[in-house]
Amino acid sequence: MVHGPNLNMLGTREPEIYGDTTLADIDILLKVTGDELGVDVESFQSNHEGDIVEKIQEAKDKYDAILINAAAYTHTSVAIHDAIAAVDVTVIEVHISNIHAREPFRHKSLISPVAKGIIMGFGAEGYALALRGAVTMINAEKNV
Amino acid sequence: MVHGPNLNMLGTREPEIYGDTTLADIDILLKVTGDELGVDVESFQSNHEGDIVEKIQEAKDKYDAILINAAAYTHTSVAIHDAIAAVDVTVIEVHISNIHAREPFRHKSLISPVAKGIIMGFGAEGYALALRGAVTMINAEKNV
Amino acid sequence: MVHGPNLNMLGTREPEIYGDTTLADIDILLKVTGDELGVDVESFQSNHEGDIVEKIQEAKDKYDAILINAAAYTHTSVAIHDAIAAVDVTVIEVHISNIHAREPFRHKSLISPVAKGIIMGFGAEGYALALRGAVTMINAEKNV
Amino acid sequence: MVHGPNLNMLGTREPEIYGDTTLADIDILLKVTGDELGVDVESFQSNHEGDIVEKIQEAKDKYDAILINAAAYTHTSVAIHDAIAAVDVTVIEVHISNIHAREPFRHKSLISPVAKGIIMGFGAEGYALALRGAVTMINAEKNV
Amino acid sequence: MVHGPNLNMLGTREPEIYGDTTLADIDILLKVTGDELGVDVESFQSNHEGDIVEKIQEAKDKYDAILINAAAYTHTSVAIHDAIAAVDVTVIEVHISNIHAREPFRHKSLISPVAKGIIMGFGAEGYALALRGAVTMINAEKNV
Amino acid sequence: MVHGPNLNMLGTREPEIYGDTTLADIDILLKVTGDELGVDVESFQSNHEGDIVEKIQEAKDKYDAILINAAAYTHTSVAIHDAIAAVDVTVIEVHISNIHAREPFRHKSLISPVAKGIIMGFGAEGYALALRGAVTMINAEKNV
Amino acid sequence: MVHGPNLNMLGTREPEIYGDTTLADIDILLKVTGDELGVDVESFQSNHEGDIVEKIQEAKDKYDAILINAAAYTHTSVAIHDAIAAVDVTVIEVHISNIHAREPFRHKSLISPVAKGIIMGFGAEGYALALRGAVTMINAEKNV
Amino acid sequence: MVHGPNLNMLGTREPEIYGDTTLADIDILLKVTGDELGVDVESFQSNHEGDIVEKIQEAKDKYDAILINAAAYTHTSVAIHDAIAAVDVTVIEVHISNIHAREPFRHKSLISPVAKGIIMGFGAEGYALALRGAVTMINAEKNV
Amino acid sequence: MVHGPNLNMLGTREPEIYGDTTLADIDILLKVTGDELGVDVESFQSNHEGDIVEKIQEAKDKYDAILINAAAYTHTSVAIHDAIAAVDVTVIEVHISNIHAREPFRHKSLISPVAKGIIMGFGAEGYALALRGAVTMINAEKNV
Amino acid sequence: MVHGPNLNMLGTREPEIYGDTTLADIDILLKVTGDELGVDVESFQSNHEGDIVEKIQEAKDKYDAILINAAAYTHTSVAIHDAIAAVDVTVIEVHISNIHAREPFRHKSLISPVAKGIIMGFGAEGYALALRGAVTMINAEKNV
Amino acid sequence: MVHGPNLNMLGTREPEIYGDTTLADIDILLKVTGDELGVDVESFQSNHEGDIVEKIQEAKDKYDAILINAAAYTHTSVAIHDAIAAVDVTVIEVHISNIHAREPFRHKSLISPVAKGIIMGFGAEGYALALRGAVTMINAEKNV
Amino acid sequence: MVHGPNLNMLGTREPEIYGDTTLADIDILLKVTGDELGVDVESFQSNHEGDIVEKIQEAKDKYDAILINAAAYTHTSVAIHDAIAAVDVTVIEVHISNIHAREPFRHKSLISPVAKGIIMGFGAEGYALALRGAVTMINAEKNV
Repeated sequence: MVHGPNLNMLGTREPEIYGDTTLADIDILLKVTGDELGVDVESFQSNHEGDIVEKIQEAKDKYDAILINAAAYTHTSVAIHDAIAAVDVTVIEVHISNIHAREPFRHKSLISPVAKGIIMGFGAEGYALALRGAVTMINAEKNV
Repeated sequence: MVHGPNLNMLGTREPEIYGDTTLADIDILLKVTGDELGVDVESFQSNHEGDIVEKIQEAKDKYDAILINAAAYTHTSVAIHDAIAAVDVTVIEVHISNIHAREPFRHKSLISPVAKGIIMGFGAEGYALALRGAVTMINAEKNV
Repeated sequence: MVHGPNLNMLGTREPEIYGDTTLADIDILLKVTGDELGVDVESFQSNHEGDIVEKIQEAKDKYDAILINAAAYTHTSVAIHDAIAAVDVTVIEVHISNIHAREPFRHKSLISPVAKGIIMGFGAEGYALALRGAVTMINAEKNV
Repeated sequence: MVHGPNLNMLGTREPEIYGDTTLADIDILLKVTGDELGVDVESFQSNHEGDIVEKIQEAKDKYDAILINAAAYTHTSVAIHDAIAAVDVTVIEVHISNIHAREPFRHKSLISPVAKGIIMGFGAEGYALALRGAVTMINAEKNV
Repeated sequence: MVHGPNLNMLGTREPEIYGDTTLADIDILLKVTGDELGVDVESFQSNHEGDIVEKIQEAKDKYDAILINAAAYTHTSVAIHDAIAAVDVTVIEVHISNIHAREPFRHKSLISPVAKGIIMGFGAEGYALALRGAVTMINAEKNV
Repeated sequence: MVHGPNLNMLGTREPEIYGDTTLADIDILLKVTGDELGVDVESFQSNHEGDIVEKIQEAKDKYDAILINAAAYTHTSVAIHDAIAAVDVTVIEVHISNIHAREPFRHKSLISPVAKGIIMGFGAEGYALALRGAVTMINAEKNV
Repeated sequence: MVHGPNLNMLGTREPEIYGDTTLADIDILLKVTGDELGVDVESFQSNHEGDIVEKIQEAKDKYDAILINAAAYTHTSVAIHDAIAAVDVTVIEVHISNIHAREPFRHKSLISPVAKGIIMGFGAEGYALALRGAVTMINAEKNV
Repeated sequence: MVHGPNLNMLGTREPEIYGDTTLADIDILLKVTGDELGVDVESFQSNHEGDIVEKIQEAKDKYDAILINAAAYTHTSVAIHDAIAAVDVTVIEVHISNIHAREPFRHKSLISPVAKGIIMGFGAEGYALALRGAVTMINAEKNV
Repeated sequence: MVHGPNLNMLGTREPEIYGDTTLADIDILLKVTGDELGVDVESFQSNHEGDIVEKIQEAKDKYDAILINAAAYTHTSVAIHDAIAAVDVTVIEVHISNIHAREPFRHKSLISPVAKGIIMGFGAEGYALALRGAVTMINAEKNV
Repeated sequence: MVHGPNLNMLGTREPEIYGDTTLADIDILLKVTGDELGVDVESFQSNHEGDIVEKIQEAKDKYDAILINAAAYTHTSVAIHDAIAAVDVTVIEVHISNIHAREPFRHKSLISPVAKGIIMGFGAEGYALALRGAVTMINAEKNV
Repeated sequence: MVHGPNLNMLGTREPEIYGDTTLADIDILLKVTGDELGVDVESFQSNHEGDIVEKIQEAKDKYDAILINAAAYTHTSVAIHDAIAAVDVTVIEVHISNIHAREPFRHKSLISPVAKGIIMGFGAEGYALALRGAVTMINAEKNV
Repeated sequence: MVHGPNLNMLGTREPEIYGDTTLADIDILLKVTGDELGVDVESFQSNHEGDIVEKIQEAKDKYDAILINAAAYTHTSVAIHDAIAAVDVTVIEVHISNIHAREPFRHKSLISPVAKGIIMGFGAEGYALALRGAVTMINAEKNV
């Protein structure tokens, strides 16, 4: 799980949009859901575009899937787009809020064209759904 | 569950994009998931914009949530947008494929701004995730 | 009088925009105003673009004028535009709210270029004004 | 009633668009309609944007409503837009012709977003309808 | 042969653009041309987008080719675009007039990208040419 | 028949788009079709915009119709547009492929607004259809 | 001759663009040229859009032609556009500099579409050419 | 100090945006600040574009600097832009509110490209800052 | 004098736009005007962009000024733009009609940014004015 | 005070735009001005977007106001925009030069919509004005 | 080596952009570099789009690679684009100056999408680099 | 030599676009070429925009030239643009693939306007060409 910039402030940052769940709460939810599905989940947060790029590069040999909420970098980072395209890993894009119901500059995601699945607007629950979806997707690919 | 135009052809229509699952398969998956979650799911398919508008209008007093894959009407129908805005029901938008990885005219959804949650790219599994997300969302609202 | 999609929900639909007058109230207002002016008014509502197209086609030999609030189809229907252009009848476009003070996608009307007169923002009263204007316009044409 | 630039030439100016009614004819029509409705109507014409701005500013304590056909300034004047927003008076925008059936640069009105009601395409009769609509609107507000 | 909205009014609708040939005349011309070429032609007209979608879906197992003049829906219907893409049938797009010599909103066709051949501007004769072209195209494919 | 730039390479140039028919084959097809219809066909190919302009100018007193596939100049030549507008001759625009299913810069034709009829996507057969259509069109005009 | 805003500062204002000729010099040049051609020339300068509108309105019965350099109002005034359209007088647009070689917002003139002739880039001499051209144009019209 | 259109209404006009300070209050603040800095400040307000143009022209020989809040004319007046460019005086643009946090049509200023300094969003205090900045700027230039 | 494509057809080409003056008439008018002004005028017409480029290149050492009506190439030729920029000669752009009152694709001239003077809308007389303007301009430069 | 990328090079970088004042000079000016106003000023410079985001996050509990010149990140960083929106602190945007008089890609600031006040074009002095404005603004808020 | 329009004027044309190297100098440089690399280089210059198209067509069986500086036709010629796409030859695009640091209409190249390699901004040296790159590229392909 | 984000993955990342050469291979090629030309080459790779900005700042006193392939930051980084503008060093932009033959968002480079030379599409060889070009360019400057 890759958390983008300013998500470390979750719970205190604009709660009318993002709710009062903290990043720690979300990581616990992911861990619990992972336990239920029999998979390990590792969390990572950074405010630095370069760090996120490098975390994705590592995924190549280390993870089956990346869940990513790139926050502000969703709308501006060609580097994250390229990093995802460069690794052969299932990527699911998650957003807490529905970005299409917000400011126009948040409507465009540079990550969407290289993501496999996209989930948004379900608040913290969206992370659990994304994990569930990723596991189903990977199992389906393994069965083929 | 509201299925939009041409989805009655699922399984035979462009299988390289939509897979070979049929609409009946999806309705069974939704029923099974609904049973697991303790909720009733009713399915409806139409190729007529007006029929979909009227089905959404009915929802007002009859359903707690609408899952909708409006297919082609996603990109052209202000009438469905208005119908959703007119009823006080949780609406989840679903797409089988990732519409942001397809033709530009499919990147814009008129439904997204009035939907609560959005899920795309998970194939048939996305319907089950959407149902699960809708149930969590409604329970959360009831608990508030 | 042609009422477009979702107007059957008037009075319950987003009352902060559309008020609490129902469609039945508007039809009564039109009948009363028609009686005062000595003209007959017939009302028709549909959520189907095709039905509205056909109702307009009928007008050719049957009505002197069409008042139309095409609601959502105002912004998307070339078919209604063409139907109006195809019949030789005075068409008045009516909107309950001021569409230029709302979302940008409602600022453009495909009906306006083929309408004779346009009235918006007066709430239900706008229908009575439209009828009055249509009658004056037709009488003036007959006198020429 | 505020008449914008070049409307003093009405009757002689491009009669195929504007008809042969003069500005004096319109002022008489407004007076007659006002008498019927029991309200006073005062008329003002200017070719100067600044004069129109100042006339609107005066309206604050002096008039219940402004009917305005800002003619060419409709499409270019942010100052008139701001003046209307600055006074607490019901404003009705009137146009003799249907501006959406004319040149593209006339399709955009800077006054529409701050007007309460809009009427166009009815020729001189549109002024009488606007007055009638304004009176109904103000009475409705007083009754609330 | 699929005829789109308002084409049932052909012959009376804007004859300076569409000529005075009626839809019945065109169907006879198609039948006569079909007889000459040894093929059967079936005609269908509807003002409803959903009906046209369903007619195209049927074509899958029933027809070798579709000739379509989608009229107004040419410019707005993603649903017809999708229906054509979903069936494996040769589609020829026909227009009576040259749409590139008319209003800008008629210059864009959503059907063109999924049509095999396009013919416009020949009036009623265009239907006969389209049929002839379709037959040649299908015979060529069968011979390969 | 005016053939535009690079069409002299037909048969060897990108055969997956243009097929393996050569320009000579097309000229024979036109001659054969012309014989069947009782008309003479003359062919001309040039890679020079100015030569095509002058060939069209000559047509004024010499030909009843011009069939033109201006190839690349279709999208860039105002001079050919003007030449067509300057001569009083029926012009039919032909393209081997469907230009609307190719790169965006090929979607716009400067010739379409001054052509009478347009035919595309039928491969070599499109030339025969164009000739047939032109003859019908001219005969119809002569009969009026 | 109508001189627009800031032209009263000619000679001192940005001389690298406008030269060091003053407005008085230009008026003398016009008078001398007028004497040579046997016509009277009257000059008028204003920084007020409304004053220019009214000066043009007067022209209706008083002048055979208007030479106008509307300066800044060239690019923003629909009111002057409308005034010119409203009077039946030959209008020649003049600019001292070549506006197409300056900032982009000066490339668009709202006066050009209603002007008969346009002359720019000749410095002060352009006024004399404009007068000469206007006289020739009016004489030609009188001779017809 | 040049105050643009509708600023004479300050204090009563949309106080949620502009506060309840009046124009007189601002002029006193400027006078007090001017006294502190040892400079004279003269104030001028007009709703007329032409008057503002002429006031700026006068500045050439009379003032060291112009502070200007052109209000609505900020976004539409090329004439004021040209007047500023024509005089050799330090110009500081001031806005009470942050125009970039308001409607899109207020984001573009025609004055900014010819202003030396820009200050906005500080309410009435912005005028004092602008004066202070202008004085520092002029002193710096004199010292060079 | 450089005449662009299709101008050899002047007098017969769309006379409602271009009048019935022929190219020969214009060349005589130029010769007569040249005699009056004491300058030699040489005329050249071509439908080939490359020929016009080369004619302009020659001008470098041979002519004091070029009058050019590039007709259709006005709107498309960067090569002519570059040729003009490459030679150190006064260039005057002439158009018979007012190109800003015609189709939008004729509003943009690639020649205007490199021309010294521009004259349009005066019909054949515009050529004489252009010659007169060029002579004045060159004499002024020689006197400096 | 947050200084953005490349500002560490101030004094040597493009002095014709930025002057020869160094970053150290500006920090001294801010300290002196802060002393005069009785406030503490802390300075921070970074070329890393992520560092600036984190510095702003810290401000939440530590500073009353942020002065920020985000330099290049002004035009590209949604992450800094979001960080500012996430903390409840008065933010003043400063630029040394007038960004509206430079390249078009510098005209748009992503910080402006979330800044309280904006100051640009005053060179180094702008920092002192910004500090002064921030102090006044905060005192005013405390007094309310 | 294909040299486009106006390059025959190199050395005299705008030397501040293109330097004082002549076309003959460049051809010698290419010959010398070719000798060093053991390849033959043939040079061709034309101001005619059609000639360049035909030269490229010839390349099919005659050359291993084309170096092309299409000059002005770079930005306007779909015909050259098509000719390159039609021949199976390695094409390298060269420009003397950096076209992205010049006027906006020179930023777009129609040749780039069909070129293998692109080199610009190195002055005459760029031709030698292009030749070197082409030889390496072709050798690499032969070795595969 | 500055290598941008994700280039550390070269050889494994999308080899159909970037080939199977690794970054180490390229650095060796540069060293070998540098030895041949008698210059030292130092290589640097980073996924962090800020690190690249600082590396460029260092160049001021340390390097004669920068070769840069900024990869994803090419299209988004104003900070790198500004850093290049701030140092007085010859900058050559390199890309392995032809960015104009890829996705539209890769067609625009923010580095191109401040680069001296640009080379793309030659694969790894492009780096050697760039080095050669830079050396020639610098030697030429030293000789002036």
